[in-house]
Amino acid sequence: MKTLVIVSHPDLLESSSQQFFLNWAKGNTDITVHHLEDTYPDGNINVKKEQSLLVEHDRILFQFPFYWYSSPPLLKYWQDIVLEDGFAYGVRGRALAGKEFGLIIMVGVKESEYQAGGTERFSINELTKPYQAMAYKTGLTYMKPFVIFQFLYMTEEEKMDTLIRYQQMLTMENDGSLATKEQWMIEQLEKMSEEAGNDNEILTYAIAHITENRDTMNELKLVLDGM
Amino acid sequence: MKTLVIVSHPDLLESSSQQFFLNWAKGNTDITVHHLEDTYPDGNINVKKEQSLLVEHDRILFQFPFYWYSSPPLLKYWQDIVLEDGFAYGVRGRALAGKEFGLIIMVGVKESEYQAGGTERFSINELTKPYQAMAYKTGLTYMKPFVIFQFLYMTEEEKMDTLIRYQQMLTMENDGSLATKEQWMIEQLEKMSEEAGNDNEILTYAIAHITENRDTMNELKLVLDGM
Repeated sequence: MKTLVIVSHPDLLESSSQQFFLNWAKGNTDITVHHLEDTYPDGNINVKKEQSLLVEHDRILFQFPFYWYSSPPLLKYWQDIVLEDGFAYGVRGRALAGKEFGLIIMVGVKESEYQAGGTERFSINELTKPYQAMAYKTGLTYMKPFVIFQFLYMTEEEKMDTLIRYQQMLTMENDGSLATKEQWMIEQLEKMSEEAGNDNEILTYAIAHITENRDTMNELKLVLDGM
Repeated sequence: MKTLVIVSHPDLLESSSQQFFLNWAKGNTDITVHHLEDTYPDGNINVKKEQSLLVEHDRILFQFPFYWYSSPPLLKYWQDIVLEDGFAYGVRGRALAGKEFGLIIMVGVKESEYQAGGTERFSINELTKPYQAMAYKTGLTYMKPFVIFQFLYMTEEEKMDTLIRYQQMLTMENDGSLATKEQWMIEQLEKMSEEAGNDNEILTYAIAHITENRDTMNELKLVLDGM
Protein backbone atom coordinates (compact mmCIF):
# COMPACT_ATOMS: atom_id res chain seq x y z
CA MET A 1 0.00 0.00 0.00
CA LYS A 2 1.31 3.45 -0.96
CA THR A 3 0.35 6.41 1.20
CA LEU A 4 0.38 10.07 0.18
CA VAL A 5 0.51 12.59 3.03
CA ILE A 6 -0.49 16.01 1.73
CA VAL A 7 0.74 18.46 4.34
CA SER A 8 -0.45 22.05 4.47
CA HIS A 9 1.22 24.36 6.96
CA PRO A 10 2.38 27.93 6.33
CA ASP A 11 5.47 27.54 8.50
CA LEU A 12 6.28 23.86 8.75
CA LEU A 13 9.85 24.14 9.97
CA GLU A 14 8.69 26.16 12.99
CA SER A 15 6.18 23.50 14.01
CA SER A 16 7.82 20.99 16.31
CA SER A 17 4.66 18.85 16.41
CA GLN A 18 4.54 18.54 12.63
CA GLN A 19 8.27 17.80 12.49
CA PHE A 20 7.94 15.12 15.16
CA PHE A 21 5.58 13.09 12.97
CA LEU A 22 7.03 13.90 9.57
CA ASN A 23 10.54 12.87 10.60
CA TRP A 24 9.27 9.35 10.99
CA ALA A 25 7.19 9.38 7.78
CA LYS A 26 10.08 10.62 5.62
CA GLY A 27 12.12 7.49 6.25
CA ASN A 28 9.46 5.12 4.91
CA THR A 29 9.63 4.04 1.25
CA ASP A 30 5.88 3.42 0.97
CA ILE A 31 5.04 6.93 2.15
CA THR A 32 5.21 10.13 0.12
CA VAL A 33 5.24 13.30 2.21
CA HIS A 34 4.11 16.21 0.06
CA HIS A 35 4.25 19.65 1.65
CA LEU A 36 2.22 22.06 -0.47
CA GLU A 37 3.65 25.38 0.78
CA ASP A 38 7.17 24.07 0.19
CA THR A 39 6.41 22.65 -3.27
CA TYR A 40 4.52 25.73 -4.42
CA PRO A 41 5.90 28.80 -2.61
CA ASP A 42 4.26 31.06 -5.21
CA GLY A 43 0.96 29.17 -4.97
CA ASN A 44 0.96 28.00 -8.60
CA ILE A 45 -0.15 24.41 -8.21
CA ASN A 46 0.65 21.97 -11.03
CA VAL A 47 -2.73 20.30 -11.44
CA LYS A 48 -1.60 17.44 -13.71
CA LYS A 49 1.30 16.58 -11.42
CA GLU A 50 -0.98 16.56 -8.37
CA GLN A 51 -3.51 14.37 -10.12
CA SER A 52 -0.76 11.89 -11.07
CA LEU A 53 0.39 11.78 -7.45
CA LEU A 54 -3.14 10.97 -6.32
CA VAL A 55 -3.52 8.21 -8.90
CA GLU A 56 -0.21 6.61 -7.84
CA HIS A 57 -1.25 6.22 -4.20
CA ASP A 58 -3.80 4.04 -2.40
CA ARG A 59 -4.31 6.09 0.75
CA ILE A 60 -4.52 9.88 0.67
CA LEU A 61 -4.14 11.84 3.90
CA PHE A 62 -4.53 15.57 4.56
CA GLN A 63 -2.30 16.70 7.43
CA PHE A 64 -2.73 20.25 8.71
CA PRO A 65 -3.20 22.47 11.76
CA PHE A 66 -6.87 23.18 12.45
CA TYR A 67 -7.19 26.92 11.74
CA TRP A 68 -10.72 28.25 12.09
CA TYR A 69 -12.05 24.70 11.94
CA SER A 70 -10.51 23.95 8.54
CA SER A 71 -7.20 23.75 6.65
CA PRO A 72 -4.76 26.53 5.72
CA PRO A 73 -5.74 28.25 2.45
CA LEU A 74 -3.28 26.51 0.11
CA LEU A 75 -4.87 23.10 0.74
CA LYS A 76 -8.30 24.62 0.05
CA TYR A 77 -6.93 26.02 -3.22
CA TRP A 78 -5.48 22.60 -4.00
CA GLN A 79 -8.93 21.05 -3.51
CA ASP A 80 -10.57 23.68 -5.72
CA ILE A 81 -8.29 23.18 -8.72
CA VAL A 82 -6.99 19.59 -8.45
CA LEU A 83 -10.24 17.81 -7.62
CA GLU A 84 -11.89 18.90 -10.82
CA ASP A 85 -14.97 17.72 -12.64
CA GLY A 86 -14.10 14.79 -14.90
CA PHE A 87 -11.22 13.74 -12.66
CA ALA A 88 -12.52 13.50 -9.10
CA TYR A 89 -16.27 13.61 -9.73
CA GLY A 90 -18.83 13.94 -12.49
CA VAL A 91 -19.09 11.89 -15.68
CA ARG A 92 -15.91 9.77 -16.01
CA GLY A 93 -14.52 11.45 -12.87
CA ARG A 94 -13.69 8.30 -10.95
CA ALA A 95 -9.91 8.62 -10.51
CA LEU A 96 -10.13 8.52 -6.71
CA ALA A 97 -12.93 6.00 -6.29
CA GLY A 98 -12.03 3.14 -3.98
CA LYS A 99 -8.95 4.80 -2.50
CA GLU A 100 -8.82 5.65 1.18
CA PHE A 101 -8.91 9.15 2.61
CA GLY A 102 -8.15 10.45 6.08
CA LEU A 103 -7.52 13.62 8.05
CA ILE A 104 -4.58 14.18 10.38
CA ILE A 105 -5.39 17.32 12.32
CA MET A 106 -3.33 19.14 14.93
CA VAL A 107 -5.51 21.03 17.39
CA GLY A 108 -4.36 23.64 19.92
CA VAL A 109 -7.45 23.49 22.13
CA LYS A 110 -8.20 20.56 24.41
CA GLU A 111 -10.57 17.83 23.26
CA SER A 112 -13.31 18.47 25.83
CA GLU A 113 -13.97 21.95 24.40
CA TYR A 114 -15.20 20.38 21.16
CA GLN A 115 -18.77 19.76 22.29
CA ALA A 116 -21.91 21.69 23.19
CA GLY A 117 -21.08 23.88 26.15
CA GLY A 118 -17.37 23.97 25.27
CA THR A 119 -15.56 26.98 23.85
CA GLU A 120 -15.56 25.41 20.36
CA ARG A 121 -19.20 24.27 20.63
CA PHE A 122 -19.11 21.52 17.96
CA SER A 123 -17.37 18.16 17.72
CA ILE A 124 -14.54 17.42 15.29
CA ASN A 125 -17.00 15.08 13.57
CA GLU A 126 -19.39 17.97 12.99
CA LEU A 127 -16.71 20.45 11.96
CA THR A 128 -15.14 18.14 9.38
CA LYS A 129 -18.35 17.51 7.43
CA PRO A 130 -16.97 19.34 4.36
CA TYR A 131 -14.20 16.72 4.12
CA GLN A 132 -16.63 13.87 4.65
CA ALA A 133 -18.79 15.28 1.85
CA MET A 134 -15.71 15.60 -0.38
CA ALA A 135 -14.81 11.95 0.24
CA TYR A 136 -18.37 10.87 -0.50
CA LYS A 137 -18.58 12.87 -3.72
CA THR A 138 -15.27 11.52 -5.02
CA GLY A 139 -15.80 7.90 -3.98
CA LEU A 140 -13.02 7.94 -1.38
CA THR A 141 -13.42 5.71 1.67
CA TYR A 142 -13.39 7.99 4.71
CA MET A 143 -11.19 6.77 7.54
CA LYS A 144 -11.62 7.70 11.18
CA PRO A 145 -9.69 10.97 11.52
CA PHE A 146 -6.51 11.12 13.54
CA VAL A 147 -6.80 14.20 15.73
CA ILE A 148 -3.88 15.31 17.87
CA PHE A 149 -5.01 17.62 20.66
CA GLN A 150 -2.46 19.87 22.39
CA PHE A 151 0.64 17.95 21.36
CA LEU A 152 2.94 20.39 23.13
CA TYR A 153 1.40 19.60 26.52
CA MET A 154 1.92 15.85 26.13
CA THR A 155 4.36 13.82 28.21
CA GLU A 156 7.13 11.99 26.35
CA GLU A 157 5.21 8.73 26.77
CA GLU A 158 2.01 10.25 25.36
CA LYS A 159 3.99 11.59 22.42
CA MET A 160 5.38 8.13 21.68
CA ASP A 161 1.91 6.57 21.92
CA THR A 162 0.64 9.24 19.54
CA LEU A 163 3.48 8.51 17.14
CA ILE A 164 2.49 4.84 17.03
CA ARG A 165 -1.10 5.77 16.22
CA TYR A 166 0.25 8.12 13.53
CA GLN A 167 2.30 5.28 12.05
CA GLN A 168 -0.80 3.10 12.02
CA MET A 169 -2.80 5.85 10.29
CA LEU A 170 -0.16 5.92 7.54
CA THR A 171 0.60 2.23 7.12
CA MET A 172 -1.90 -0.09 8.82
CA GLU A 173 -4.74 -1.80 7.00
CA ASN A 174 -7.97 0.07 7.74
CA ASP A 175 -10.35 -2.63 8.95
CA GLY A 176 -10.35 -1.84 12.67
CA SER A 177 -9.74 -5.47 13.66
CA LEU A 178 -7.54 -6.66 16.49
CA ALA A 179 -5.93 -9.21 14.13
CA THR A 180 -4.83 -6.37 11.85
CA LYS A 181 -3.35 -4.45 14.78
CA GLU A 182 -1.39 -7.53 15.88
CA GLN A 183 -0.20 -8.27 12.37
CA TRP A 184 0.93 -4.65 12.01
CA MET A 185 2.78 -4.85 15.32
CA ILE A 186 4.56 -8.05 14.27
CA GLU A 187 5.67 -6.43 11.02
CA GLN A 188 7.06 -3.43 12.89
CA LEU A 189 8.96 -5.69 15.29
CA GLU A 190 10.34 -7.76 12.44
CA LYS A 191 11.48 -4.60 10.70
CA MET A 192 13.21 -3.44 13.88
CA SER A 193 14.76 -6.87 14.26
CA GLU A 194 16.17 -6.70 10.71
CA GLU A 195 17.51 -3.21 11.25
CA ALA A 196 19.15 -4.23 14.49
CA GLY A 197 21.27 -6.47 12.24
CA ASN A 198 21.85 -9.33 14.67
CA ASP A 199 19.24 -11.46 16.36
CA ASN A 200 17.64 -9.47 19.13
CA GLU A 201 16.22 -11.89 21.66
CA ILE A 202 13.65 -9.51 23.14
CA LEU A 203 12.19 -8.69 19.72
CA THR A 204 12.14 -12.35 18.71
CA TYR A 205 10.43 -13.22 21.97
CA ALA A 206 7.80 -10.47 21.54
CA ILE A 207 7.01 -11.60 17.98
CA ALA A 208 6.63 -15.21 19.09
CA HIS A 209 4.43 -14.16 21.99
CA ILE A 210 2.02 -12.09 19.86
CA THR A 211 1.87 -14.81 17.20
CA GLU A 212 1.10 -17.46 19.80
CA ASN A 213 -1.66 -15.32 21.34
CA ARG A 214 -3.14 -14.84 17.91
CA ASP A 215 -3.07 -18.60 17.20
CA THR A 216 -4.82 -19.29 20.51
CA MET A 217 -7.50 -16.72 19.74
CA ASN A 218 -8.00 -18.11 16.24
CA GLU A 219 -8.49 -21.60 17.71
CA LEU A 220 -10.97 -20.28 20.28
CA LYS A 221 -12.86 -18.52 17.49
CA LEU A 222 -13.06 -21.80 15.49
CA VAL A 223 -14.45 -23.58 18.56
CA LEU A 224 -17.03 -20.84 19.13
CA ASP A 225 -18.03 -20.81 15.46
CA GLY A 226 -18.55 -24.57 15.64
CA MET A 227 -20.86 -24.37 18.67
CA MET B 1 -27.10 49.90 10.43
CA LYS B 2 -23.92 49.52 8.39
CA THR B 3 -23.35 46.27 6.50
CA LEU B 4 -20.03 44.91 5.28
CA VAL B 5 -20.22 42.34 2.47
CA ILE B 6 -16.92 40.52 2.22
CA VAL B 7 -16.94 38.89 -1.21
CA SER B 8 -14.53 36.12 -2.17
CA HIS B 9 -14.57 34.94 -5.75
CA PRO B 10 -11.52 34.21 -7.92
CA ASP B 11 -13.18 35.58 -11.08
CA LEU B 12 -15.96 37.92 -10.00
CA LEU B 13 -16.46 39.73 -13.31
CA GLU B 14 -17.18 36.43 -15.05
CA SER B 15 -19.90 35.51 -12.56
CA SER B 16 -23.25 36.88 -13.73
CA SER B 17 -24.97 35.67 -10.55
CA GLN B 18 -22.53 37.56 -8.31
CA GLN B 19 -22.81 40.68 -10.49
CA PHE B 20 -26.60 40.53 -10.38
CA PHE B 21 -26.62 40.94 -6.61
CA LEU B 22 -23.60 43.20 -6.20
CA ASN B 23 -24.92 45.72 -8.71
CA TRP B 24 -27.75 46.43 -6.33
CA ALA B 25 -25.56 46.49 -3.23
CA LYS B 26 -23.05 48.93 -4.69
CA GLY B 27 -25.64 51.70 -4.94
CA ASN B 28 -26.46 51.67 -1.24
CA THR B 29 -24.66 54.08 1.11
CA ASP B 30 -25.08 51.87 4.19
CA ILE B 31 -23.46 48.90 2.46
CA THR B 32 -19.74 48.35 1.89
CA VAL B 33 -18.94 45.75 -0.76
CA HIS B 34 -15.42 44.47 -0.21
CA HIS B 35 -14.07 42.05 -2.81
CA LEU B 36 -10.95 40.39 -1.42
CA GLU B 37 -9.41 39.09 -4.67
CA ASP B 38 -9.78 42.56 -6.21
CA THR B 39 -8.39 44.40 -3.16
CA TYR B 40 -5.47 42.03 -2.70
CA PRO B 41 -4.51 40.56 -6.10
CA ASP B 42 -1.14 39.47 -4.66
CA GLY B 43 -2.80 37.99 -1.56
CA ASN B 44 -1.09 40.35 0.91
CA ILE B 45 -3.96 41.19 3.21
CA ASN B 46 -3.68 44.36 5.31
CA VAL B 47 -4.72 43.03 8.70
CA LYS B 48 -5.13 46.38 10.48
CA LYS B 49 -7.24 47.79 7.65
CA GLU B 50 -9.47 44.72 7.64
CA GLN B 51 -9.92 44.87 11.39
CA SER B 52 -10.91 48.58 11.15
CA LEU B 53 -13.47 47.71 8.49
CA LEU B 54 -14.99 45.07 10.74
CA VAL B 55 -15.16 47.44 13.71
CA GLU B 56 -16.92 50.11 11.59
CA HIS B 57 -19.78 47.82 10.58
CA ASP B 58 -22.68 46.26 12.46
CA ARG B 59 -23.46 43.33 10.17
CA ILE B 60 -20.72 41.27 8.54
CA LEU B 61 -21.55 39.00 5.63
CA PHE B 62 -19.39 36.50 3.76
CA GLN B 63 -20.50 36.14 0.14
CA PHE B 64 -18.89 33.39 -1.93
CA PRO B 65 -19.46 30.47 -4.29
CA PHE B 66 -19.59 27.15 -2.43
CA TYR B 67 -16.43 25.36 -3.63
CA TRP B 68 -15.88 21.98 -1.95
CA TYR B 69 -18.36 22.93 0.75
CA SER B 70 -16.45 26.03 1.81
CA SER B 71 -15.13 29.39 0.61
CA PRO B 72 -12.40 30.16 -1.94
CA PRO B 73 -8.91 30.15 -0.35
CA LEU B 74 -8.43 33.91 0.01
CA LEU B 75 -11.36 34.23 2.41
CA LYS B 76 -9.94 31.36 4.45
CA TYR B 77 -6.59 33.16 4.55
CA TRP B 78 -8.43 36.33 5.59
CA GLN B 79 -10.01 34.42 8.50
CA ASP B 80 -6.66 32.96 9.55
CA ILE B 81 -4.81 36.28 9.77
CA VAL B 82 -7.52 38.92 10.44
CA LEU B 83 -9.49 37.12 13.13
CA GLU B 84 -6.54 36.92 15.45
CA ASP B 85 -6.23 36.19 19.14
CA GLY B 86 -6.71 39.41 21.14
CA PHE B 87 -8.91 40.93 18.43
CA ALA B 88 -11.62 38.42 17.58
CA TYR B 89 -11.27 35.99 20.49
CA GLY B 90 -9.21 35.30 23.57
CA VAL B 91 -8.44 37.70 26.40
CA ARG B 92 -9.57 41.23 25.39
CA GLY B 93 -10.53 39.83 21.94
CA ARG B 94 -14.09 41.12 21.87
CA ALA B 95 -14.01 43.45 18.84
CA LEU B 96 -16.76 41.52 17.03
CA ALA B 97 -18.97 40.63 19.99
CA GLY B 98 -22.58 41.63 19.49
CA LYS B 99 -22.31 42.25 15.76
CA GLU B 100 -24.29 40.15 13.30
CA PHE B 101 -22.79 37.60 10.93
CA GLY B 102 -24.26 35.81 7.95
CA LEU B 103 -23.35 33.70 4.94
CA ILE B 104 -24.46 34.38 1.38
CA ILE B 105 -23.61 31.27 -0.58
CA MET B 106 -24.05 30.55 -4.28
CA VAL B 107 -24.50 26.85 -4.97
CA GLY B 108 -24.37 25.11 -8.33
CA VAL B 109 -26.17 21.93 -7.30
CA LYS B 110 -29.89 21.80 -6.56
CA GLU B 111 -31.12 22.06 -2.98
CA SER B 112 -32.57 18.55 -2.75
CA GLU B 113 -29.12 16.99 -3.19
CA TYR B 114 -28.01 18.47 0.15
CA GLN B 115 -29.40 15.70 2.33
CA ALA B 116 -28.79 12.05 3.16
CA GLY B 117 -29.25 10.09 -0.06
CA GLY B 118 -28.43 13.11 -2.23
CA THR B 119 -25.21 13.56 -4.20
CA GLU B 120 -23.87 16.03 -1.59
CA ARG B 121 -25.04 13.88 1.36
CA PHE B 122 -25.12 16.65 4.04
CA SER B 123 -27.29 19.72 4.55
CA ILE B 124 -26.01 23.27 4.21
CA ASN B 125 -26.57 23.56 7.96
CA GLU B 126 -24.20 20.63 8.56
CA LEU B 127 -21.60 21.77 6.04
CA THR B 128 -21.38 25.32 7.42
CA LYS B 129 -20.60 24.29 11.00
CA PRO B 130 -17.09 25.79 10.78
CA TYR B 131 -18.67 29.23 10.21
CA GLN B 132 -21.17 28.70 13.01
CA ALA B 133 -18.30 27.79 15.32
CA MET B 134 -16.38 30.89 14.20
CA ALA B 135 -19.38 33.11 14.99
CA TYR B 136 -19.79 31.47 18.38
CA LYS B 137 -16.12 31.84 19.28
CA THR B 138 -16.01 35.52 18.29
CA GLY B 139 -19.36 36.49 19.85
CA LEU B 140 -21.02 37.22 16.49
CA THR B 141 -24.77 36.61 16.24
CA TYR B 142 -25.27 34.01 13.52
CA MET B 143 -28.03 34.85 11.05
CA LYS B 144 -29.95 32.32 8.99
CA PRO B 145 -27.76 31.84 5.89
CA PHE B 146 -28.93 33.06 2.52
CA VAL B 147 -28.27 30.22 0.09
CA ILE B 148 -28.86 30.71 -3.62
CA PHE B 149 -29.21 27.38 -5.41
CA GLN B 150 -28.73 27.22 -9.20
CA PHE B 151 -29.24 30.90 -9.89
CA LEU B 152 -28.63 30.43 -13.61
CA TYR B 153 -31.63 28.12 -13.96
CA MET B 154 -34.03 30.59 -12.32
CA THR B 155 -36.83 32.37 -14.17
CA GLU B 156 -36.73 36.18 -14.25
CA GLU B 157 -39.41 36.29 -11.57
CA GLU B 158 -37.48 33.91 -9.31
CA LYS B 159 -34.37 36.04 -9.78
CA MET B 160 -36.26 39.17 -8.70
CA ASP B 161 -37.68 37.37 -5.65
CA THR B 162 -34.17 36.24 -4.78
CA LEU B 163 -32.88 39.79 -5.15
CA ILE B 164 -35.46 41.03 -2.64
CA ARG B 165 -34.38 38.40 -0.14
CA TYR B 166 -30.78 39.44 -0.79
CA GLN B 167 -31.68 43.06 -0.08
CA GLN B 168 -33.32 41.97 3.17
CA MET B 169 -30.25 39.98 4.16
CA LEU B 170 -28.15 43.14 3.73
CA THR B 171 -30.45 45.77 5.19
CA MET B 172 -33.40 44.38 7.15
CA GLU B 173 -33.47 44.10 10.92
CA ASN B 174 -32.81 40.49 11.90
CA ASP B 175 -35.70 39.63 14.22
CA GLY B 176 -37.75 37.45 11.88
CA SER B 177 -41.01 39.30 12.64
CA LEU B 178 -43.76 40.15 10.15
CA ALA B 179 -43.83 43.72 11.48
CA THR B 180 -40.13 44.12 10.59
CA LYS B 181 -40.76 42.79 7.08
CA GLU B 182 -43.62 45.25 6.57
CA GLN B 183 -41.63 48.15 7.95
CA TRP B 184 -38.75 47.24 5.64
CA MET B 185 -41.12 47.08 2.65
CA ILE B 186 -42.56 50.52 3.47
CA GLU B 187 -39.06 51.99 3.67
CA GLN B 188 -38.17 50.53 0.27
CA LEU B 189 -41.34 51.91 -1.28
CA GLU B 190 -40.76 55.34 0.26
CA LYS B 191 -37.23 55.33 -1.10
CA MET B 192 -38.54 54.43 -4.57
CA SER B 193 -41.15 57.15 -4.25
CA GLU B 194 -38.47 59.74 -3.40
CA GLU B 195 -36.26 58.61 -6.26
CA ALA B 196 -39.18 58.79 -8.70
CA GLY B 197 -39.06 62.54 -7.96
CA ASN B 198 -42.76 63.27 -8.30
CA ASP B 199 -45.61 61.73 -6.37
CA ASN B 200 -46.21 58.24 -7.67
CA GLU B 201 -49.81 57.31 -6.90
CA ILE B 202 -49.30 53.55 -6.98
CA LEU B 203 -46.42 53.69 -4.53
CA THR B 204 -48.31 56.07 -2.23
CA TYR B 205 -51.30 53.76 -2.33
CA ALA B 206 -49.19 50.66 -1.55
CA ILE B 207 -47.53 52.37 1.42
CA ALA B 208 -50.90 53.50 2.81
CA HIS B 209 -52.31 50.00 2.34
CA ILE B 210 -49.50 48.22 4.17
CA THR B 211 -49.53 50.82 6.97
CA GLU B 212 -53.31 50.45 7.39
CA ASN B 213 -53.01 46.64 7.55
CA ARG B 214 -50.34 46.95 10.19
CA ASP B 215 -52.48 49.36 12.25
CA THR B 216 -55.41 46.94 12.09
CA MET B 217 -53.20 44.06 13.17
CA ASN B 218 -51.73 46.09 16.03
CA GLU B 219 -55.27 46.93 17.24
CA LEU B 220 -56.30 43.26 17.03
CA LYS B 221 -53.21 42.33 19.00
CA LEU B 222 -54.10 44.86 21.72
CA VAL B 223 -57.62 43.42 21.93
CA LEU B 224 -56.25 39.87 22.17
CA ASP B 225 -53.72 40.89 24.81
CA GLY B 226 -56.56 42.48 26.84
CA MET B 227 -58.68 39.33 26.80
